[in-house]
Amino acid sequence: MGLAYTSIRVKDMGKSVRFYTRGMGLKVVGKRSPIPGEEIVSLEDKSTKQRINLMWYSRGCRMYAPWKQDGVELDHLMFVVKDAKRQYKALVSAGAPVAMELHDFEREGTKISMGFVKDPNGIWVGLRSESKSRG
Amino acid sequence: MGLAYTSIRVKDMGKSVRFYTRGMGLKVVGKRSPIPGEEIVSLEDKSTKQRINLMWYSRGCRMYAPWKQDGVELDHLMFVVKDAKRQYKALVSAGAPVAMELHDFEREGTKISMGFVKDPNGIWVGLRSESKSRG
Repeated sequence: MGLAYTSIRVKDMGKSVRFYTRGMGLKVVGKRSPIPGEEIVSLEDKSTKQRINLMWYSRGCRMYAPWKQDGVELDHLMFVVKDAKRQYKALVSAGAPVAMELHDFEREGTKISMGFVKDPNGIWVGLRSESKSRG
Repeated sequence: MGLAYTSIRVKDMGKSVRFYTRGMGLKVVGKRSPIPGEEIVSLEDKSTKQRINLMWYSRGCRMYAPWKQDGVELDHLMFVVKDAKRQYKALVSAGAPVAMELHDFEREGTKISMGFVKDPNGIWVGLRSESKSRG
């Protein structure tokens, strides 16, 4: 629970994975493609337990943005929290701009609530809570 | 040893500290001003142990860059390693561009070697090793 990782955008997934694994000693701990045209590789430092995610989007993906757009290299910070809806509402009430509205979806039998606000510098901050689906 | 934290630049340190502590539940675990005009606040999530550093530079500081310059919001990723010189040389030999040359300095009785290379997307990646000073 809490800050889970930092996500950065990459231009070439292969080059970036090689740099951070062979060059910097991180280990690949996950690979996902949650939506078409999106690739995520999760890396962890086995010693410090710090995690970063590498994010790549194809040109046709709805999350795609041209490289070198302001703030894009730092994709987002992700917080796994107990009640994403409650914290999202509290942050928005306190003045945080909405980056992506809170929405619910299901993945592999887990119900997920997720939304994004912007921090004081426009950096996307994700809130996610998970619960097992009934049945 | 290894990936220590992600550092992001901030426009207003007070606003960003409030957002990440009161808003997001992180704790302040350190504050430093290594060079004139530079302020660093280290934040940790006590549950996941993930760390981020907030970085602020005054207009006169040599590290200052205008806000919204490419890649500036993500200040750098920092790796604490056994031998910064060796790894720096290896990365540069393998083609990583130099962002800040490896240099040695002393802080509070500790000898520090530190340098920065650029990852495949131009993000600054820091290498730091520390050893106790003699005497």
